[in-house]
Amino acid sequence: MKHELGGKEASNLKVRGFKAAAVASGLKARSALDLALIFSETEAVCAGVFTSNKVKAAPVLITMENIKGGVARAIVANSGNANACTGPKGLEDARETARMVASQLGIKPQEVLVASTGVIGLPLNMDAIREALPRLKEGLVPQGLDKVARAIMTTDKFPKLRGVRGKAQGKDYSIAAVAKGAGMIMPDMATMLCFVLTDLNISLEELKGALEESVSKTFNRITVDGDTSTNDCVLALANGAAGNDTLSSKDLDEFRGHLQAIMKQLALDIVRDGEGATKLVEVVVRGAADKEEALRAARTVSNSALVKTAFYGKDPNWGRIMAALGRADISMDPGLVDIWINDIQIVSQGIGMGVQNEEKAAQEMAASQFSLIIELHQGNMEETMWTCDLTHEYVSINADYRT
Amino acid sequence: MKHELGGKEASNLKVRGFKAAAVASGLKARSALDLALIFSETEAVCAGVFTSNKVKAAPVLITMENIKGGVARAIVANSGNANACTGPKGLEDARETARMVASQLGIKPQEVLVASTGVIGLPLNMDAIREALPRLKEGLVPQGLDKVARAIMTTDKFPKLRGVRGKAQGKDYSIAAVAKGAGMIMPDMATMLCFVLTDLNISLEELKGALEESVSKTFNRITVDGDTSTNDCVLALANGAAGNDTLSSKDLDEFRGHLQAIMKQLALDIVRDGEGATKLVEVVVRGAADKEEALRAARTVSNSALVKTAFYGKDPNWGRIMAALGRADISMDPGLVDIWINDIQIVSQGIGMGVQNEEKAAQEMAASQFSLIIELHQGNMEETMWTCDLTHEYVSINADYRT
Repeated sequence: MKHELGGKEASNLKVRGFKAAAVASGLKARSALDLALIFSETEAVCAGVFTSNKVKAAPVLITMENIKGGVARAIVANSGNANACTGPKGLEDARETARMVASQLGIKPQEVLVASTGVIGLPLNMDAIREALPRLKEGLVPQGLDKVARAIMTTDKFPKLRGVRGKAQGKDYSIAAVAKGAGMIMPDMATMLCFVLTDLNISLEELKGALEESVSKTFNRITVDGDTSTNDCVLALANGAAGNDTLSSKDLDEFRGHLQAIMKQLALDIVRDGEGATKLVEVVVRGAADKEEALRAARTVSNSALVKTAFYGKDPNWGRIMAALGRADISMDPGLVDIWINDIQIVSQGIGMGVQNEEKAAQEMAASQFSLIIELHQGNMEETMWTCDLTHEYVSINADYRT
Repeated sequence: MKHELGGKEASNLKVRGFKAAAVASGLKARSALDLALIFSETEAVCAGVFTSNKVKAAPVLITMENIKGGVARAIVANSGNANACTGPKGLEDARETARMVASQLGIKPQEVLVASTGVIGLPLNMDAIREALPRLKEGLVPQGLDKVARAIMTTDKFPKLRGVRGKAQGKDYSIAAVAKGAGMIMPDMATMLCFVLTDLNISLEELKGALEESVSKTFNRITVDGDTSTNDCVLALANGAAGNDTLSSKDLDEFRGHLQAIMKQLALDIVRDGEGATKLVEVVVRGAADKEEALRAARTVSNSALVKTAFYGKDPNWGRIMAALGRADISMDPGLVDIWINDIQIVSQGIGMGVQNEEKAAQEMAASQFSLIIELHQGNMEETMWTCDLTHEYVSINADYRT
């Protein structure tokens, strides 16, 4: 039933009734793709999740306004400039971008959702956008999502694009999603840009519920550096082109499962592509007193600079993990904690298992992906976060790159 | 009245009635000093502040027990091994250390305070300590604090030692303090080792109050990496050898001022010596709605990996500062925020002041020390934190060093 598309196959990703395009408008240097457009040939119901940062970029504010109607026809997104901390002029520029796109496409400005990512605090080059829009519209093709994924990259090293096919009420449908993100990534907030398209006929409430649930279990469970962007948003558009009847609860469950699966893939892609990252680490906390404590423990360990540098050094440095747990404000008895790297136990009842196990664990940590499992023995609750290592390259990127 | 001692002069620091010594016991490699002893010839009132980490090292637990009596005669401290996460054996080793020191000095085990710093999770080499103790006792001299400061270093690049002289009720008195700390440094917790000695005749309550106040305004206001050690403690011993009468409230205020001054110097020394740090940055948040929000804002900015890498890159990257403020959970209107580097304004009412000011600010950031001042315009409250930059060297140190 489920057919996931990733890698090369993903570059041909299409969803009925949607077209997409991207061009190099000059916002980014070196004539890289930097302006993207997604167009729905018919009205699509739409839902969004936005950054919880109090400093919200102008396009986030405008899109939060426009999405209230529950219907959209287009997403316009640029990289190279975040249009954040740009005052009233920035708001006007985001509005003007929506107006220009609407006029090109013959739709209403309120049906256009705007997203930006890149440097904070510089005025958007509106002339570049204005001149690029006709080319952008001309470029619209059903298989244009691959270009969109590349156009929204900033410090990303690879484009992030995933798709899946499902069936509901006897009709085939697709979900496709593109995302960007590598730095300023921190959980508990929408953490990057992600656009999800589907031709499923789904109600606004169903779409909203599924999107919010998926974000909380995927993008809000990843961290690269503990910082939160001013521009993050996840937008989902459903145009109903699959022509299915009202969804049964089984159909809806399946859709939620599909959506969460591709959003998890994209979330892990973002961590894998974390600035300077060489390792993707799954941090599992088990046996917590409650869900909140499980998540808080996982998050504290995942954000610890000392734990993250130890990952980089392939060092099963459980002392740093214990120290991070100890400041996580959770119910714990240090003398009950067990810790594993994959299936190699390195701590039993709060005490190290010795050099032999640590050497085996270090071998596991040499891989580009591994799990850190912590058992607290305080209850039955479990939560998972995904993080990456903290490397020399992270420092190089962020001492030089101007976000 | 106030005479501060630092640098070379500090190496002759003495406090009447106290002797100190340090030896190389073999706990650290390369026969470096690693075992230190401070001895009070008479009973001293003592106060302590300990790590808030739930994972507390064995010596912290034993010292918390012994300090309850309010009187101490000795501090024994080792580097090279934290004796943390070592279970019942670790507790017994810390107790045994206190017993051995007591027997050498002819005092009670409960009068010995124990501190350890270094690698977590390995058993303490008790034979090394046992063999070294007679030499340690023989080495006790009034000017031994300089050696103590060197013996408690781990990744520290320089010893941290400060002194000050005061007068109370017509009698001269001294305060001397040694500290260590470079990594696993995070505010809101006692954050390192610090031993304070004074010959002032002061009551236990007065000493406790002064110590707690000083810690909250100095060591709890610094951050290197947002991590908290399992071993941190600040201990203060006052032996009354100055022979002064009961302190007047003016005397006490002066003592508190002196104490806070040298503890601030040591706190800044720790940040200056932050692992890999090249810059000491004072982060001042003004105009906050309340004290807590001022501190939370200062702390979030001070701990942001993106802000700290920008410091390293001499980049007045105010967008990252705004983004950090936006996630600090404080009352703020982005459109009211002003930001300065020293006296160069880079943000006015939430908007950048332009390239010229940023270039000037970048010049200020080339220095080894500068201030970042943030005005929120939400109220009158102000708080200050001290942080350092996040550098390649931090990653190198922590990917290789086993804490």
